[in-house]
Formats: sequence, C-alpha cells, structure tokens
Amino acid sequence: MKTVIVGGVAGGMSAATRLRRLDESAEIVVFERGPYVSYANCGLPYYVGGVITDRSSLLLQTPQSLAARFRLDVRTGHEVIGVDPVARTVSVLDLAAGDTFVESYDELILAVGATAREAAGHPGIPTHTLRTVEDVDAIGALVDAAADHPSALVVGGGFIGLEAVENLVRRGIHVTLIQRSAQILTPLDAEMVAPLQAQLRSHGVDVRTSVTIDEVSAGAVLLSDGATLRPDFIVDASGVVPSVDLARSAGLRIGPTGGIAVDDSNRTSDPHIFAVGDGVEKIDALSGSETLVTMAGLANRHGRSVADVIAGRQEHNTPALGTAIVKVFDTVAAKVGWSERQLVAAGRAHRVIHTHPASHATYYPGAQPMSTKLLVDPGSDAILGAQIVGGEGVDKRIDVIAVAMTGGITASGLARLELAYAPQFGSAKDPVNQLGYVADNLRTGATRSIQWHELDAALAAGSTLVDVRTPGEFAAGAIPGAVNIPVDDLRDRVAELPDGPLVVHCQVGQRGHTAARILTQYGRDVVNLDGGYRTWVAGASLGSREAVGTGR
Amino acid sequence: MKTVIVGGVAGGMSAATRLRRLDESAEIVVFERGPYVSYANCGLPYYVGGVITDRSSLLLQTPQSLAARFRLDVRTGHEVIGVDPVARTVSVLDLAAGDTFVESYDELILAVGATAREAAGHPGIPTHTLRTVEDVDAIGALVDAAADHPSALVVGGGFIGLEAVENLVRRGIHVTLIQRSAQILTPLDAEMVAPLQAQLRSHGVDVRTSVTIDEVSAGAVLLSDGATLRPDFIVDASGVVPSVDLARSAGLRIGPTGGIAVDDSNRTSDPHIFAVGDGVEKIDALSGSETLVTMAGLANRHGRSVADVIAGRQEHNTPALGTAIVKVFDTVAAKVGWSERQLVAAGRAHRVIHTHPASHATYYPGAQPMSTKLLVDPGSDAILGAQIVGGEGVDKRIDVIAVAMTGGITASGLARLELAYAPQFGSAKDPVNQLGYVADNLRTGATRSIQWHELDAALAAGSTLVDVRTPGEFAAGAIPGAVNIPVDDLRDRVAELPDGPLVVHCQVGQRGHTAARILTQYGRDVVNLDGGYRTWVAGASLGSREAVGTGR
Repeated sequence: MKTVIVGGVAGGMSAATRLRRLDESAEIVVFERGPYVSYANCGLPYYVGGVITDRSSLLLQTPQSLAARFRLDVRTGHEVIGVDPVARTVSVLDLAAGDTFVESYDELILAVGATAREAAGHPGIPTHTLRTVEDVDAIGALVDAAADHPSALVVGGGFIGLEAVENLVRRGIHVTLIQRSAQILTPLDAEMVAPLQAQLRSHGVDVRTSVTIDEVSAGAVLLSDGATLRPDFIVDASGVVPSVDLARSAGLRIGPTGGIAVDDSNRTSDPHIFAVGDGVEKIDALSGSETLVTMAGLANRHGRSVADVIAGRQEHNTPALGTAIVKVFDTVAAKVGWSERQLVAAGRAHRVIHTHPASHATYYPGAQPMSTKLLVDPGSDAILGAQIVGGEGVDKRIDVIAVAMTGGITASGLARLELAYAPQFGSAKDPVNQLGYVADNLRTGATRSIQWHELDAALAAGSTLVDVRTPGEFAAGAIPGAVNIPVDDLRDRVAELPDGPLVVHCQVGQRGHTAARILTQYGRDVVNLDGGYRTWVAGASLGSREAVGTGR
Repeated sequence: MKTVIVGGVAGGMSAATRLRRLDESAEIVVFERGPYVSYANCGLPYYVGGVITDRSSLLLQTPQSLAARFRLDVRTGHEVIGVDPVARTVSVLDLAAGDTFVESYDELILAVGATAREAAGHPGIPTHTLRTVEDVDAIGALVDAAADHPSALVVGGGFIGLEAVENLVRRGIHVTLIQRSAQILTPLDAEMVAPLQAQLRSHGVDVRTSVTIDEVSAGAVLLSDGATLRPDFIVDASGVVPSVDLARSAGLRIGPTGGIAVDDSNRTSDPHIFAVGDGVEKIDALSGSETLVTMAGLANRHGRSVADVIAGRQEHNTPALGTAIVKVFDTVAAKVGWSERQLVAAGRAHRVIHTHPASHATYYPGAQPMSTKLLVDPGSDAILGAQIVGGEGVDKRIDVIAVAMTGGITASGLARLELAYAPQFGSAKDPVNQLGYVADNLRTGATRSIQWHELDAALAAGSTLVDVRTPGEFAAGAIPGAVNIPVDDLRDRVAELPDGPLVVHCQVGQRGHTAARILTQYGRDVVNLDGGYRTWVAGASLGSREAVGTGR
C-alpha cells in the first residue's frame, strides 16, 4: 500500500504521521513544494515581530527527523504538477533539478491549502503574503532594509492581517491598514469590533475601512478614498482562496464554495484521492451547507482522520463551527458559529444578547472588561453563534460556548453550566452563566430587549428613553434624548414618566433589566436596551453605513 | 405573599434579588446572623494575604443598598433560632437587643450554609475558621500581633486550607500544614497533587500528611507524628458539615449525606420550606445519588431558581459535576467529576489517561507545562472525571471538559471539539483534543497502557521496561531496570529486546505511543506506560501508602 501526500504542513503531515503509527508497512511519500515541512505557520507573524526569536522553534520537523521517527519519505522542493487518477500517478517537478518524474500511488492525499486571493504583485512596491517561511524571511528583510521612517501597507484586516499589523508596529513600522468592507475582522459584527478598531488607532495604526487600492505606480499607492501612500512594502492579507488547480486538472469535483468537494471522510469525487485542509470544503454546523473554514485545527484533525480511513477505520467528520480567535495588542477577539450579519443575510430568525462582564470576580485584582454577544434561535433556544472581545478569559468563554454548541446545550442551558470558580478565574455566576440567565429571561418573556441599531426607530415611534444609571454616569456621557432616573429611585419617581412605551438602559444592561422588571410590574410597556450604553456607544461610533443589516 | 430567607450570602441573596425582579409586590425579609450580607466569601483568604486590600470590595451589598435597589427587608445581627412549619413562623433572636420575636412566612428559604467540622477551640492557642468576614478580621489581628518569627498551623489541605496557607506565607508567616489523609487536596488523586505538595514545600511550608492533632496544651500542639509545634495561631480548614440544626428542629428530612434533603426544585420535606447552598444535598451527575458539593456557583444558581419556583415558574436543578479549582502560588489545580480514588472505592470500571501538554503552542513564548488526567468509562466511553494541574489555561481546559460532560460528549469526542486556536491560547491540537485522541486510541485498541502504580507488578511478572527517550534524558533520570532504546532507533534495534511482554515509556507518553505502535506491528506484546516518566515520578514520590487503591 503506497500513499502519496501532496503538501507537508498541517493536514498533510498529520496524515503522514498518523498513517505510519497505524501501519508500519505502509509506503508513505510526502511532496512539499517549499523548502520546509511541518512548520508552525500560525507563528509566522510573531517571528516577523520578534516575539518569536528562535527560528528553529517554528520548524517543528525536518525530512530527516520525520524519516527517523516515522519512516516517511519526505521530499521538499518537489511540486506535484499533475495527477492521473486512472493510472493513479502524479507528475512531480523537482524544483532544484528541474526534472519531472512520475510517482505511482494507491491512495493520494491532497493537502495543498489555499493561496492569496489577489495577485501579489504591485509595480514598484515589494508585496508579500504572510503564509510561508519564505514570506516572513522576505518581509523581515524588507523591515530591516526600510528607511528611517519605515512604513507598510497591510491589505486586509482579517485574522492574519491584524497579526501582521501588530507585529509590524512592534518592529517600529508605521502601518496603514485598509479593509475593503466597512469594518475589520468581518467574522465578528461591527459593534463588537469597534473597540478593536479604536485600539489599533491608539497604537498609531491608520485604519481605513471601505477602502481599496485604486492604482499602484512608481512606488505610490492611490487608495479609493483619495489618499496616496508611499509604503516601503505591502503585506497582502486580503484573504485566500482554495488551491484547486491540481484537483481541477485531475477532474475532481469542485464544490459550490470553490473548494475541493469531499465527503465526510474527506474523500474527493475520486475514491482513491482524499483532500484536507484549507483547500477543502467543510460542512457548516448551522446550515448543513458547504463552507470554507481555513483553520489549522480542522486541517490537522482531518489529516489524521484521513489516515484512519486509509488504514481501514471508520472516521466521519463533524460539521464545522468556525471557532476562531485573534490577539491584537492587548485585545482578544473570538467567535464561534454565525454572526448577526450572516443571520440577517440568510434571513434566519435570531435573538441577540450583549453583555459586558468582568473576566473574573471584581473584588480580586486584575479583572478585565469583556464584551460578549450571543446569537440565539428564538424558536429552539439553540445557540447560533457567539462573539467575545476583551482580554483575559476570552479564549475560555468562546471555547465553553463552542463546546456547548457541539453538545447541543441551549442558550438558557448556559446558566446551568458548572464552571470552575475561584476569584482568579471567574465569578460564582460566570459570564457564560450570565448569558444563559439573560437568554432564559428573554425566552420566558421575563424581559424584552431592543438592539442598539433599533433605538432610533423606537424613539421616532414615540418611546421615551430612560437612563437608569447614576447622575454621575449620566453626566459623563449619555444617549441624546434620555431622561435620567436612577434605578434605585425608579419606584418613587415612576409617575414622572410620560405615557407610552419606554426604553430603559443602564451601562451594560443589568440595572436596565431590573428597571424593566420594576416598570413592567407598574403596568408599563418597557424594553431594555440590550448591552446598555456600552454597546450603544460601540454601535454609534460606527456610522450608519456600518450598522447591522444596513448598507451591507 | 411573604417570603422569609434565613442567611444573607450567596444562595440567600440570589433568591432574594431574583424574587424581587420577578415579583415587585412580594414581601421579602432576609435574616442574617452575622453583621454582613452578600459578601465575597471566596475572596476572604486573599484579604488576609493582602492581595485584596480594599475591604469594601468584599462587601458587595449592604442592607441599605439592597433596600434601595430591591426593596428587601434585610436584618443583619438576627439569628433564626426556630421554625414552626405548621404555624409557618420563625423565631428570631435579635443579637444586639437580645430580644426574640416571631415572624410569619408564606414561603421559607433556608440558606444557612455549613459549619466547621471540628470544634474550633484549642486551649491556649487562638483558633479560627476562614468562612466569614469576622474570621478574617480575627486572623488579620493575630497576624499583626504575631511575634518576630510568626508561625501558624493550618489544619486541612483542601481548597480553603491551601488558600489560607498561600496567604499566610504571603504575610511572612511560617506555616505548618497538616492533613489527616495521605495527601492534600483529596478531590484530586495523589499523583496529580504531588507537584503541588512539592511546590508548597519549596515555599517553605511544612506539609505533613497522614497527621492529626493529638493534643493541645499550654500553647503547644502535639502532632500524631510526634512533632510539637508552638504556633501563634491555628486556622481550622478541616472541612465543613451542613448546618442542619434549624432544619432538624423543624422536622425537615435530613438526607443520607447529612445535608438537608431537597427535591430538584430545592423544596425540603415541608412544601413551604426550601433550602439552598452548602447545607443542602445535591445529586451527583455520575451516580445519581445524594452528595455534598459546597460550591458558590451552585448556591447562587439554586438560590435564583428557588425564587423562580416561588414565583410560580418551573425550575429543575441539573445534577452536580463538582467542578472546582484552586490556585496556590503559581500552581493551579482543578477537577470535575470523580477521581480515580472515588471510582476505585465505588468499584466502578474506568480507564485512566495522563498527559503532559503545554498550555499553548511551544513555539510561542510563555507556554507552561500542564498535567492532565482523564477518567473514562471503558464501556460507554463517557467521561467520568478529569483533573488538571499546571498554570495558564488549566481553568479553560477543566471548563471545556465540564461542559463536554454536561453535553454528553464522549472521551473520544474530545478530539473533535473545535476550540479557538491562536498560538497564545492553545495548539492546533489542543490539550483537550489530545486527550480525545488518546481516549480514541485506547477505545479502538490502537494502543494499550498501564498506570504508574501497575508498573511494579508488570515488571515482577516478567515484562521488560523499554525507555524510548534519548540517551540524555535517560541519563538525567530513569526508572530502575529500564533498557534505553530511543524511539527513532527502535526499528533497527528491535532484535535486541528480550522475548516476552514489553512496557515502553517516554517522558510524557507520546513517543511511547509511537514506540508501542511500532513494536505491536513487529508482533510484540507491548503496553505504554501512561503519562510516561513524568507521571511515574509523581507517583513514585508518594510512597506506597499513598498509591491509588492501596491503603486508603
């Protein structure tokens, strides 16, 4: 049995090593186009920034180490340029020698990943993606060679783009970040990203949203907003598309998303060809439809499971939630499942919850603010997605919610999760439990809420806005048109409120909930402004073009 | 409708505030024996240690603030000394005035918690528990008044005892910690706790296990190991028992564990009396039997749900997993579900997995070592429990496993959890995923393992022990009797191995797995020493009395 693997990083190498562990007698050949295999591509931006200083720590394995441990025949500098599925052979170009040869296979695994969406070349300005060791070597050389006041243009504010920005700033580079859409980090919703955009700007990053490159000539970049930049170099993080040339030439089915179509064992339309990693379609856990999720975790896991399948075991992929996280300076942003934008676009009913808890018990030093967003199916109470932005503990809460989604735990059920509590780590009612309580209050009708982007319409329709914070908080900044009656005075002053519907709000939503409960029991028609002043401020900072469901 | 609540912390106050939000017209009276309500009792040790310096931050609410926000009638310094369930009245002693009066109720909630197991008094040496604000004030005064070389004896190495030790050390006190059983932190198994005991000793703590107090007289403490101590004071953290005097006098049913028996709505044997918190039995998620779990999270949650029930809503408790965590100096120890010791004692079949992953990708700076233990039902592959000891990220992984247990995710299913990955937070194969892979290998028979405490028997029965680490690792410390053949040389040197069964091991178990797979395919009878050298060392450090299932 001979298995040929095309691509020697994440998915490909997971398949190779697992296959060896399962089958000592298997013949396993890995072709990698680049000079390195099994490197830590998620660490590359931090090598640029000098956070990771030991280059060798990124190179997890070598062909020699893989031969010794796993008896793998790993050939770097070898590009597979053709597949003959009938003869079961691949054509391989030895890049150093310039020779082409043919290698046979019994089973073939394509783990060729994805490639930059846009053409990398810009006349007169060095441009690189940030996907390979060669990329970071080239960017590192550009940083070293840059002028007294070095500057760079990063195209694309997704996960990789933001990591590139942070690490270039760390190296003293002035960075302009342009983003085609109206916000950076589009897997999250706009109001959740607003604090992150503000933080980037506070680090001197020139963040320009809804902006593209109009023209590059003679070392100058003309942006669509009229600005002209002269960056020393450009980092292209504008996104990736699946690498499907090889699959297409082999006649393999390409799916509706543009990725290689595979079944739940990662088998392509040819029974002896498997495919894993960023080049392959996944199944979305919420819709059951094909989707692209370019995450290292899935690539590794699917690589391993393909080895199981080839070794004769049953392995079936589970649908993908798209859990993801990024740290930018001191801010951590994470998501799982669908965003509100996706739900709106799909016309899928949803309920939205924003909270702003502390990362751990506030009486213990070092608690950090956190903003969370939970998206809930109003019919089934299923969790549709979550987003969390903050510092400490963001990763924990997004993982907890991801596992809850996998386990079929409802939004209200989050209240009953028994999470580990000591004051350094959380609260007796953890932020995730709190989300569950809010979800339960909405589900049972104990409270009703409106969203930050629904407030204007509610006020235009005659609602009175009641700010139930303290006079001090009110004086420090308030929503225009609000009446200030602190929650503790509400019972005594309810008669002051005009007839008609009420919108109450506080700083983060909790006192607003208490106020809404009080006023409801005084017979008033009242809704709580979800997420309070803090979410409203984040939303209001965006401008109307960036509002949820408008203009996108 | 008038609800009387006995006890104004965690569960009692959660009930009171929730009930007000649900019912503006309810009459709600809270009697608290002590001078404070709604204080952060989990923060008390850190106030002793000076980590928390702002006393007011511990006092989350006052009777005044609770009256203003929630219209609660909170009376501190009032001890409820009797209940008449027929008349539906309580007898209340006003501690300041010395008067007793009778208060009627429609519904009564007992939230009186637990009390120290042992008598607090020791002749000639001040002794305090660490459960109330008064306790920490008293301990603080003792610390301040202590001599030039102050010393303290902490009785009991559970969660509270360990927090007390850390904080006393922080104040410059020399601490002796005695523990009745053979290890501290008995919710975890002995080999998991060994590093924690070592760390305590490295901080100068005199840790004495299997030791009790024989006698206290004239300022001297005679221990059962023959030592005599003269501590300035004693902190009694020897554990708590439910406070059931009031419940018992009211004729309420006390359960088999000694806690107040309640149904899944926290209703006692009297339909108008509810009970929540540390004084109440919970249902264990694994056995379905009554258990005691003294965790603030459950107290708060059950308090809230009792309010729902009183307000006419359906609320049913879910069984308790007993998730818990403690930080002691730089070490974090956490657990969920059952320990191996509990499983052995119950005669319940189980499979054990130890791993020693890094808290995040090792190529990114700051990764910390972590030791994990997973207990698995060999029939159903259900997760029975987990223990994690380390630093960064322990809290996240125990929460992830707790949620997986709640969601019915199997041990092998942990491999498929889609956890958020960036190099600061984890690995593409997260430590939890890795546990899933090991579980899957054991479930499918791809590998077999033995435990550290089973090694001696295996060697005595004729197995050969093969250490597959590098010669350098072997030279730095090895298990007596082991033959060293590095995994990378194993294929070439397999002929060197004597006939008969083999036990292989590496440092943490991973290379051992690869070695076991190789040797299995060479036709050898081979098992991998679970958790490798690191788990074996932790176990071996304990001595035979402390081994799992022996002598306990």
